[in-house]
Amino acid sequence: MQGFEWISTLEEFEEQSARVTDWIAGYLRDNRRYPVLSRAAPGEVTAALPASPPEEGEPFAEIFADFERIIVPGITHWNHPRFFAYFAISAAPVAVLAEALSAALDVNAMLWRTSPAATELEEVVLRWLRELMGLPQTFSGIVYDTASIGGFTALAAAREALGLDIRELGMTARDLPPLRVYITEHTHSHIEKASLALGVGRCNVVAIPVDEEYRMRSDALRAQLLADLKAGMQPMCIVATVGTTSTTSVDPLPEIARVAQEHRCWLHVDAAYAGVAAMLPEHRGRFDGIELADSVVVNPHKWLFVPIDFSALYVKDPEVLRRAFSLVADYLLTPPLDPSTSSGQAKLGVTHGVRNYMDYGLQLGRRFRALKLWFVMRAYGAGKMRDILRGHIALAQEFASWVRAEPNWEILAPHPFSVVCFRHVAPSVAPEDVDDHNLRIVDAVNQTGEAYLSSTRLDGRIAPRLAIGNLRTTREDVLAAWQLLLEAARGLS
Amino acid sequence: MQGFEWISTLEEFEEQSARVTDWIAGYLRDNRRYPVLSRAAPGEVTAALPASPPEEGEPFAEIFADFERIIVPGITHWNHPRFFAYFAISAAPVAVLAEALSAALDVNAMLWRTSPAATELEEVVLRWLRELMGLPQTFSGIVYDTASIGGFTALAAAREALGLDIRELGMTARDLPPLRVYITEHTHSHIEKASLALGVGRCNVVAIPVDEEYRMRSDALRAQLLADLKAGMQPMCIVATVGTTSTTSVDPLPEIARVAQEHRCWLHVDAAYAGVAAMLPEHRGRFDGIELADSVVVNPHKWLFVPIDFSALYVKDPEVLRRAFSLVADYLLTPPLDPSTSSGQAKLGVTHGVRNYMDYGLQLGRRFRALKLWFVMRAYGAGKMRDILRGHIALAQEFASWVRAEPNWEILAPHPFSVVCFRHVAPSVAPEDVDDHNLRIVDAVNQTGEAYLSSTRLDGRIAPRLAIGNLRTTREDVLAAWQLLLEAARGLS
Repeated sequence: MQGFEWISTLEEFEEQSARVTDWIAGYLRDNRRYPVLSRAAPGEVTAALPASPPEEGEPFAEIFADFERIIVPGITHWNHPRFFAYFAISAAPVAVLAEALSAALDVNAMLWRTSPAATELEEVVLRWLRELMGLPQTFSGIVYDTASIGGFTALAAAREALGLDIRELGMTARDLPPLRVYITEHTHSHIEKASLALGVGRCNVVAIPVDEEYRMRSDALRAQLLADLKAGMQPMCIVATVGTTSTTSVDPLPEIARVAQEHRCWLHVDAAYAGVAAMLPEHRGRFDGIELADSVVVNPHKWLFVPIDFSALYVKDPEVLRRAFSLVADYLLTPPLDPSTSSGQAKLGVTHGVRNYMDYGLQLGRRFRALKLWFVMRAYGAGKMRDILRGHIALAQEFASWVRAEPNWEILAPHPFSVVCFRHVAPSVAPEDVDDHNLRIVDAVNQTGEAYLSSTRLDGRIAPRLAIGNLRTTREDVLAAWQLLLEAARGLS
Repeated sequence: MQGFEWISTLEEFEEQSARVTDWIAGYLRDNRRYPVLSRAAPGEVTAALPASPPEEGEPFAEIFADFERIIVPGITHWNHPRFFAYFAISAAPVAVLAEALSAALDVNAMLWRTSPAATELEEVVLRWLRELMGLPQTFSGIVYDTASIGGFTALAAAREALGLDIRELGMTARDLPPLRVYITEHTHSHIEKASLALGVGRCNVVAIPVDEEYRMRSDALRAQLLADLKAGMQPMCIVATVGTTSTTSVDPLPEIARVAQEHRCWLHVDAAYAGVAAMLPEHRGRFDGIELADSVVVNPHKWLFVPIDFSALYVKDPEVLRRAFSLVADYLLTPPLDPSTSSGQAKLGVTHGVRNYMDYGLQLGRRFRALKLWFVMRAYGAGKMRDILRGHIALAQEFASWVRAEPNWEILAPHPFSVVCFRHVAPSVAPEDVDDHNLRIVDAVNQTGEAYLSSTRLDGRIAPRLAIGNLRTTREDVLAAWQLLLEAARGLS
């Protein structure tokens, strides 16, 4: 029985997959040989590719040769042990294999029936993660691609929870008060993007002042809410962060939650990066108050070794998500008496224990993402996952101690997790040039290809930033980055 | 140099990947042995899994055995040649390998510099696809996960293009007119979801009547716009579909575009499923007028053999997307003088030829999706891709001819592409029972495990629906589905 063809015979596929998995094994064994930051010039990759697609199919060997010749040099190696920029991430080998299996199955987990195992495994791994993080069972979870979408969904739920019937009536031509979203200057930009999209308006996204450790000031938050209410505005959502992107600062959840409760305002906690640190008893205290949140985002694709993308949203009341998003189309009916088609009426997790995840967000199409987290959790086990996180945090603390001990270097922010903000302040560098000087240091390190760091701005000052999160990062790697920083500073001072 | 560990040694990884790719090869060789629709009962997968994650890591062999024992029976096999539900899809083997490579690289293509090859390959493959579809070069493309997000983004751009400064000022406490979105009852539900999210309100999503072939009536559209304008409302977006989800009907683009132009209203064309049929000269005429659209969505993960997810949005004026979404955070600064960091000022595709795709949508995190489409386009070549699409369409037409030739069966809608809506109307079945009867027929077929169909509702009547789109679907597979339908109808009449 021949179909329209896999293009290659299966024997060819076996050869091809052996070639690809050999390459991946080699890549995982030693990708230190690649410069972390790609050296490709703008347009260089494009110039190496034909302007038009081929009319005839090409042999796999040629395609793969071009992958190695054209694509790989244009890659910035996020899965590299010396990637210290943004948040450092990892794709565990078992998770790479899980992604291949997911791709081969090509499941769309939109309805329970369109793959019961995809929906139920998603529920199970999110319960596992919830338990490991010590989140109460009152939270139920859903997987999205990114924290951007998880945060957007949380804000949409917060808007829906106001009871203003925005779903049906919209936001125009009505006497609606301004809807206010409370963040800090350290809140991740996706919250502001979501607010723009949701019609809140940038002018209603209010940055609450932070204290000297870049944490939201709850007294200022309370004052702002009171002032807004007095002015006839409607608080919609307070966004607190555990592990902000610049410094990994931790907003004071118990105090913020109290303000949220006083005004019955939705509290969203962005723990996209640091959330998994709640798995460590010695860090659990930083998450006190998270149980009072209405929604929490945590990204296993950041610091739990699954390849991008996988972001988990936990919510107290998933029914609000359904109210915001559920629409059941005729072409999704699957006859008859299928519990999964009753989503119009089903209460989440109640009717026959079946959940149709498409009802809880914007996206109808949903990859089978749960498989990779399941593979990772089983292959590593909770104990090993904790060890790795602890190891990353210890390395960051050691790096900070090196910075602190070195003349002319300073730490610019507390570093509770695995990210350190610092800078170089040489006597030979004029105060007005310190920012440029530090940008040049980071650039010099990045140009070596031996490590890749990013920077941020704190109180107006440029802060180079070292983030640890790759499975294979060793003390030697961090030490190498430090030596490169020292050398660059010497060369530029 | 030992890191925090891949958990397994690389020798183990080689064994593991051989095991996984063998399994995938076997799966692709003959997944006909699986029932297409999973027979798992609600809760069955969950019950087979422990309530808590393991404390100690487990051997890969055990994890993989559980994958086969627990997960696979809970899979509804979208990549099966007898999957005829919703829209039938395929994961080409080369694309599965590309996904494994993407996962191993674990790239986040948020900025050009965070992997120049990911950004530039995305531009290149979208130009290739544009050329194959005959879209004018005035369109520039971006990849999202799903059409739900692509459509949402198009509508957000349409809202931004109104010049009402909703980005800054929001939609509340202002004297804004109702913003109107024009669809038909056959428009995909993601447009309505997007409208809810964007604060348009369900009451402002107007279903324009369709003609007897389920196509938007442009005279009714024009009348609605005029009435709305007279009532002080603001048309925001007209959504036309080439290949609606229920019947694959084609809205009359040239006439609709004329209405859009008369009122300077944004025209979005949803060609998520059928767009790739524009690659066939004999079908190109169905896309006449698409060049007048402001935005077009087409999903290679539907009918172009790449695994979920991959949806392309083409827009005439990407600058509007940037205006709607761009926010540049301090922690994304990468020093110094990097062309890719000037996105706050950069004009798309102008500044050093560099594009930061994160500026054009909600999501900051972006998988390296371009690789799989590149692999497919090169492995198959344009000629073979056209052959396959033609083959699918021909099979659907042949199936329709069987239905038409059989007593008591009828075709319920035109079938320009690879989807056929039909039903059984036996003399023995009372008119009021015809819907139930047809639902039972589909269910009986699905329960055999030999094929999987879905149904829709047309003019209030239940319509079983056969969709062809899998690479390996043969005439024998379609014939088998037809025989199953005939048998089920006999058994139930």
